[in-house]
Amino acid sequence: MKSSRSLFNPFRSAIRIASLFLFVAMFMGCSNSGANSDSKTSQNQENSRPEWAIAIHGGAGVISKDLSEDIRAGYEASLEAALSHGTERLAAGESALDVVEAVVQILEDDPRFNAGRGAVYTAEGVHELDAAIMDGRNRAAGAVAGVTTVRHPISLARLVMDETSHVLLMGAGAEAFADETDLERVSNEWFDTDNRRRPLERAREREAERASTERASATQAVFLEEKASRYGTVGAVALDKEGNLAAATSTGGMTNKRFGRVGDVPVIGAGTYADNATAAISCTGTGEQFIRHVVAHQIASRMELAGESLHDAASYVVQQRLDPGDGGIIAISHTGEIALVFNSSGMFRGAADANGRFEVAIWE
Amino acid sequence: MKSSRSLFNPFRSAIRIASLFLFVAMFMGCSNSGANSDSKTSQNQENSRPEWAIAIHGGAGVISKDLSEDIRAGYEASLEAALSHGTERLAAGESALDVVEAVVQILEDDPRFNAGRGAVYTAEGVHELDAAIMDGRNRAAGAVAGVTTVRHPISLARLVMDETSHVLLMGAGAEAFADETDLERVSNEWFDTDNRRRPLERAREREAERASTERASATQAVFLEEKASRYGTVGAVALDKEGNLAAATSTGGMTNKRFGRVGDVPVIGAGTYADNATAAISCTGTGEQFIRHVVAHQIASRMELAGESLHDAASYVVQQRLDPGDGGIIAISHTGEIALVFNSSGMFRGAADANGRFEVAIWE
Repeated sequence: MKSSRSLFNPFRSAIRIASLFLFVAMFMGCSNSGANSDSKTSQNQENSRPEWAIAIHGGAGVISKDLSEDIRAGYEASLEAALSHGTERLAAGESALDVVEAVVQILEDDPRFNAGRGAVYTAEGVHELDAAIMDGRNRAAGAVAGVTTVRHPISLARLVMDETSHVLLMGAGAEAFADETDLERVSNEWFDTDNRRRPLERAREREAERASTERASATQAVFLEEKASRYGTVGAVALDKEGNLAAATSTGGMTNKRFGRVGDVPVIGAGTYADNATAAISCTGTGEQFIRHVVAHQIASRMELAGESLHDAASYVVQQRLDPGDGGIIAISHTGEIALVFNSSGMFRGAADANGRFEVAIWE
Repeated sequence: MKSSRSLFNPFRSAIRIASLFLFVAMFMGCSNSGANSDSKTSQNQENSRPEWAIAIHGGAGVISKDLSEDIRAGYEASLEAALSHGTERLAAGESALDVVEAVVQILEDDPRFNAGRGAVYTAEGVHELDAAIMDGRNRAAGAVAGVTTVRHPISLARLVMDETSHVLLMGAGAEAFADETDLERVSNEWFDTDNRRRPLERAREREAERASTERASATQAVFLEEKASRYGTVGAVALDKEGNLAAATSTGGMTNKRFGRVGDVPVIGAGTYADNATAAISCTGTGEQFIRHVVAHQIASRMELAGESLHDAASYVVQQRLDPGDGGIIAISHTGEIALVFNSSGMFRGAADANGRFEVAIWE
């Protein structure tokens, strides 16, 4: 393999052994919220299938534990607001599909997360947004890539699913489709935030340094892009009172991306998947790895074909197939089991269900 | 499901029963070339794992059996030429990855097929090309969508895989990446062929009729696009002497496509997938269906997790999960088993291996 990933090969064995230990701690932390000191929990211990359930994420990656209390509280408040909204609507009997779209809209509007307003900048200093939604009832799906003026890309993906015979629209064509809808449009600058401009400036400085010292081409600059800058996505998965599943994911992609790079989000089966027979899944992390391993569909397939529980399937794929640090997934099975699994240092996430669970968390 | 597919629901039960009969005939036709009157066969009966194997396709769909003998012979000669080239290179010990790229280049240059020169026209009367390649050794993958001036999109996909850390580049960004390579560039008109212009003109006439009689919007026009115009793709899968698998697919998409529509070809796991542990797979047909069902990865998953043979896995997915007429797949397993399975009236295809098999075929 000639990609940059091969550079890490010599370290993989050691990392895999270390990750085994991490895995145990992480799995317990993720699956048992009562043991998770970073979560706010009011879970009761019922094991019955919940009448409804929801999980959300706001990206996975290297999240410093030195975050100030203010910043940390801000993230938690954002996650709680989105989770509360979804919780209320599911409790009121709304469909999983409508709820995941609405919750992702809230996360897209929140400048804390890399989707919609607050999306990272491309190398050209603009924003190109990707989103996907999938309906577990019938595998209907819609996705958009490289959208630039649609306030809620997740809703454009929904309209691709509902109003065309297509699944994936890209770039200027997706914008032209948006022109035929009633969706709210904004200037590309509307997505600007200072928090995202600084990483772009740092990435450009690093490139300039490399170009002067290593005569690196633009291609190599992309090639060498730091892993840490790739993270950040929002997503929601839900099980409604009718027993239907749905998944939605939205992202600004990676800081300083070039060449129309598209990650896993709009790739159905990679970053987003839903099937009532198995689970609804939304991913976040190094998009390319989620594409190569068809992560969301691989988890669903292990449930369907190997009879694994959602947790076993998700943990196997995230911990054994992906590389340490690649990211994580949120998922809900058709029985209401919730999985929040990641192999990075943190994942902004939340989960709630009709049995009284309501928690948000950042680290293990 | 609100897409056009739901219109066919009332007929599905009857169609499924009919397809059971078709399936038996088709499966025999595809898996046993000796019984296939449309194939040119010099297969011997060895059951040992072949030293190498290759399969190709030039699209699936409604292919009239009233083709003139000249046209039919032309397609067969084109398939034989591409298959011979791949056969010679695999016999000489070249890698599956290099061979599938080279064979797809030949099919891209051939105006008979909907990829490269001979690609269908978009609604704007131009060509937007998609391609993907995947290396079964390490799941490395590269894909491009909406390319307009690269003579061999499959080779641009190869460079995305080899020279960047990304998997999928789209549109103007993919063209900018091509600018940094040595790949041959052509004007978009270079892809023009009269054979593809006529279907566009017919599609435009139908749209004009609909617009006057039904006040259909452009969105609805896409929605109503005839199934028959969606077909046509080229692909190759190979097993080399080292036991490595690779898959490559390239397409011009669907006639009269709008809104930057992207089909299954550049969606890793949907239209293209390769993993040495299971199989290399390339798909052709109604791209949206292959995306929703993650067809290529679903076949590989059934082999890995349910222990099915390539034939059983491919036949199940194509005949039971897809709808009749959706299209087909070519695949080679890690043991050298070749599958050529479709549920449309025809699929341009060919297969060869080191045990003496060499055949091309169009219908069942």
